[in-house]
Amino acid sequence: MALIVQKYGGTSVGSPERITEVAKRVLRWREKGDDVVVVVSAMSGETNRLVALINELNPEGLAREKDVILSTGEQVSMGLLALCLQAMGCEARSYTGRQARILTDSAFGKARIREIDASLIKTDLDAGKVVIVAGFQGVDADGNITTLGRGGSDTTAVALAVALEADECQIYTDVDGVYTTDPRVVSDARHIPKLALEEMLEMASQGSKVLQIRAVEFAYKYDMPIRVLSSFDDGDDGKSTLVTREEDIMEEVMVRGVAFNRDEAQLTIKGVPDKPGVAFDILGPISDANIEVDMILQNVGSDGSTDFTFTIHRNDYPDAMRILQETANTLGAADCSGDQRIAKVSIVGGGMRSHAGVASQMFEALAKDGINIRMISTSEIKISVVVDEKYLELAVRTLHEAFGLSAEAA
Amino acid sequence: MALIVQKYGGTSVGSPERITEVAKRVLRWREKGDDVVVVVSAMSGETNRLVALINELNPEGLAREKDVILSTGEQVSMGLLALCLQAMGCEARSYTGRQARILTDSAFGKARIREIDASLIKTDLDAGKVVIVAGFQGVDADGNITTLGRGGSDTTAVALAVALEADECQIYTDVDGVYTTDPRVVSDARHIPKLALEEMLEMASQGSKVLQIRAVEFAYKYDMPIRVLSSFDDGDDGKSTLVTREEDIMEEVMVRGVAFNRDEAQLTIKGVPDKPGVAFDILGPISDANIEVDMILQNVGSDGSTDFTFTIHRNDYPDAMRILQETANTLGAADCSGDQRIAKVSIVGGGMRSHAGVASQMFEALAKDGINIRMISTSEIKISVVVDEKYLELAVRTLHEAFGLSAEAA
Repeated sequence: MALIVQKYGGTSVGSPERITEVAKRVLRWREKGDDVVVVVSAMSGETNRLVALINELNPEGLAREKDVILSTGEQVSMGLLALCLQAMGCEARSYTGRQARILTDSAFGKARIREIDASLIKTDLDAGKVVIVAGFQGVDADGNITTLGRGGSDTTAVALAVALEADECQIYTDVDGVYTTDPRVVSDARHIPKLALEEMLEMASQGSKVLQIRAVEFAYKYDMPIRVLSSFDDGDDGKSTLVTREEDIMEEVMVRGVAFNRDEAQLTIKGVPDKPGVAFDILGPISDANIEVDMILQNVGSDGSTDFTFTIHRNDYPDAMRILQETANTLGAADCSGDQRIAKVSIVGGGMRSHAGVASQMFEALAKDGINIRMISTSEIKISVVVDEKYLELAVRTLHEAFGLSAEAA
Repeated sequence: MALIVQKYGGTSVGSPERITEVAKRVLRWREKGDDVVVVVSAMSGETNRLVALINELNPEGLAREKDVILSTGEQVSMGLLALCLQAMGCEARSYTGRQARILTDSAFGKARIREIDASLIKTDLDAGKVVIVAGFQGVDADGNITTLGRGGSDTTAVALAVALEADECQIYTDVDGVYTTDPRVVSDARHIPKLALEEMLEMASQGSKVLQIRAVEFAYKYDMPIRVLSSFDDGDDGKSTLVTREEDIMEEVMVRGVAFNRDEAQLTIKGVPDKPGVAFDILGPISDANIEVDMILQNVGSDGSTDFTFTIHRNDYPDAMRILQETANTLGAADCSGDQRIAKVSIVGGGMRSHAGVASQMFEALAKDGINIRMISTSEIKISVVVDEKYLELAVRTLHEAFGLSAEAA
């Protein structure tokens, strides 16, 4: 008998019919003899409806009040699923973030889980009940409702799985796992049945939207296996991707997949005095404005000045450009420029640690197809390049084929 | 400087525009120097939306889960109003029933308030903040979310006013107070500026839907003045009805108003053995089925048997009739009959305590217009009659005129 934590996303609980399907699936796991804790998102569309109401009244209002409003979406889903299970003769009990004792810090809108006291949930499980927990939310030390930010339900599920010492955390979504790349871009992308957490971390942060990066980080830290499954499969024998910490998976193949993301924009400041502290002078004000910087590139200058390029989320582009222009004036830089039509493409795989030449193989493949590389960034298990957005699909397909990821190459 | 508790119903917060109007009104009270605590209902339509979702999945499910779902409506309203006040530069803070420490029993769906610890709210008021509380909800001793039943927001407002020792509890609704009868039935119905709580209690329980009966009972018990106002008046100089416990108002006029209700149905069991305990034999099973009985009438029989008639809510008619037929079989009664096309019309007024002949004046007026009386029930300050439903409007107009309540008679 295993203890399973299952998370169902917004489309999986998007209607009474979908909720009924989820309840049937939970029952099937129960009938196998497993204990099940279910984490639910808000019904699809609900969070957007609430955000629209907020934005109509006061988009700049205190995040505490926004969290109070946004947290209701998951609260409705959890109650509906409990009612549905009860109708099927299964004892079920729902918990808000507070009732599940998910204690967070007070960073409203992007709170971090500090601690979970799972004793109440354990008592219910011991009594044979299915426990349903609202995802995405918690409570701070003062009793305020907090939310974990978009996609926070994945984090709730993994954190609960850790607190309950569950055997597996299952993330049900609208796809049946992780693929070598997005099948909408490369039609013969292959399903990956097993993946290392480190690889998933790079795949997720590079734009594969199957799992939230924070949830993967949490799973990595506490060694919790995650399984990604589709809630739209009829049975439970469908495909899935198991994401674990097992070291040996990492070495199996050189390149696991191709991730990409077109949410970034690039900013460049030219002719900056090449002296210690200049990176902080440029990025400090950006960070003060709560804008996250992804890739950073500094050319070594020859005439005592240097060029500095970095990427940010595209939504932050107008703010970042305004701040950078102020900085340019202060530093006496020559010029500022930017580009929103860029895309980042990455190859990810634990195997590349022990294989030399992966980077040059990547650059060669791109060059053959005439794709110019604008920025490069590397880590132990991934290489990312920034290219013109118009080349995105071509670059993904080229790399997918070059590293033998396509189905016929398997 | 006064402390005012204001309650806004569903239509008053039914859209972002309406919420903005509420915020403006709260600000006007603040600018007068008053402290304001606001209790809000769910946006109009929202509770019905949630009920429809519940009914689609499991109308018979546990009330605990239904309360979890239903309580979200008020939580959204309170957050939106807080955001709106913040946008207007007013510090505001929202509280769920739990955060406001509204402790109830565990009768989910119809919980009773046991205790309110208002210390947190007082601290916020002392700091100059407007406090917004979700109506209709509380928390039980185990931390479960409870709801007080439909219209429970009025009760929340009065209970908070009592706990905070407020100067007045203002109930904003879509009408500007209590009238001598429903203006939709009698076009020259007069506005009542001041009313005794006992009279309001009878008006409310007799079907005047301006205030919830439980809220009035609460106000009566703790001597809290209630003012009924319209949130659709532009200024704050509109009409209102003040409902207080002052004894002298009661004696001012003989009959204060005409209340009516067409939600009842009548059941009769004939030829019941006339012996002690028969009333309990008949009404016990009805009460066991959680059906509330309103009027009860037992004829004195001459041949050792008696007829027994009572009224219930029309929704309970099929259940009650089935139960009554079983009882008739058990008791060996002659016959059961029922009628759903009835209406109850009442005259209410503290003055009738000291005026003889009010009842006969009422019966005379009805007889003159050919309206047959089917049942009569009296209390210290009201006389109710049951008539055929088709006579309802005629009976109301007749009594309204007979007791000099019309505008021209003033």
